[in-house]
Amino acid sequence: MTEQKATNVTWHDHRVTKADRFALKGHKGAVLWFTGLSACGKSTVANTVDHLLHEKGKHSYVLDGDNIRMGLNKNLGFSADDRAENIRRIGEVAKLFAHAGNFTLTAFISPYKADRDKVREILAPGEFIEIYVNASLETCEKRDPKGLYKKARAGELKGFTGIDDPYEAPDNAELVLDADNKGIDELAQEVVDYLEAKGYFAA
Amino acid sequence: MTEQKATNVTWHDHRVTKADRFALKGHKGAVLWFTGLSACGKSTVANTVDHLLHEKGKHSYVLDGDNIRMGLNKNLGFSADDRAENIRRIGEVAKLFAHAGNFTLTAFISPYKADRDKVREILAPGEFIEIYVNASLETCEKRDPKGLYKKARAGELKGFTGIDDPYEAPDNAELVLDADNKGIDELAQEVVDYLEAKGYFAA
Repeated sequence: MTEQKATNVTWHDHRVTKADRFALKGHKGAVLWFTGLSACGKSTVANTVDHLLHEKGKHSYVLDGDNIRMGLNKNLGFSADDRAENIRRIGEVAKLFAHAGNFTLTAFISPYKADRDKVREILAPGEFIEIYVNASLETCEKRDPKGLYKKARAGELKGFTGIDDPYEAPDNAELVLDADNKGIDELAQEVVDYLEAKGYFAA
Repeated sequence: MTEQKATNVTWHDHRVTKADRFALKGHKGAVLWFTGLSACGKSTVANTVDHLLHEKGKHSYVLDGDNIRMGLNKNLGFSADDRAENIRRIGEVAKLFAHAGNFTLTAFISPYKADRDKVREILAPGEFIEIYVNASLETCEKRDPKGLYKKARAGELKGFTGIDDPYEAPDNAELVLDADNKGIDELAQEVVDYLEAKGYFAA
């Protein structure tokens, strides 16, 4: 069977490279990792950025609770191990999406610095953009759209970030968004402006 | 805080839909699920299809052992449970990639019908294209590029598909490729022709 040998040779020739994918998309791929307290606005900002990018003809995709906790990570709970595994898997999937040439937006509390740094480590320099959606606990607790802070304060939810579990704010985030004082649209535009200024819109 | 309420309203407005993503890509997204024995040619055909699609300006991506077993699924072994979880995770990620508008090619033995059917079930009709790379055990064992069949025959590898673990051939595959008698390029072209004939190249 010489066929398989020839096949192995052509394998590498046929492989579409990351650079090829960026060229087709017309821009670079990267992970935009949104982190912040529950109700700080992560998902809303991420979805607004996604929308703005899409309107500009950029290829983007949001990984958030809606499509991850119900699918890929539905077999994970909220133990320390499961929280770490949750972030690990999201990081690996985000990496694949970025290498396919997408702006990949993730919107998870991701409270622990070590877990976020592990994701940074599996990506090339410039491919991991940490975006701290900085809203005070007071602001988030006043919003509390799902009543989660209320439940946590009442002791009905254990291990809730910001109440009885720590949130470790980033100290080296590429972007810090002032979610106490600025609206969603303004924050989203800051993210798009960052991408443009840093050259991500060129392949 | 009225801000959060306004935010919740805009969330849905801002959400980019699957149809929006298909429109930007210029074609539909779908999962092309290659299945077959070890050394049947799955990965090589998938990578060749990926290359052909890329050259036509279509957005595609390959999920295979190279980027999955070393990343997302590096914490999985080869027990029955781990094999099922391996395929489950790949299916969930392939679904996300397809919904982002990509032709998502997966190249894993995926020997059990039940595991493949579970992936089919999480996708909409037409979004799961099962491609059986049909090469006889004899053909695969003659090729044996990594010497795995030899090791399995010697008892050094346990639970090897086709030797001491079953391969359940699909009975409802969308495409069956005759990998005993046709070359890689011909098989890859059959896949591309299928996509074109079935209307996948229109958004």
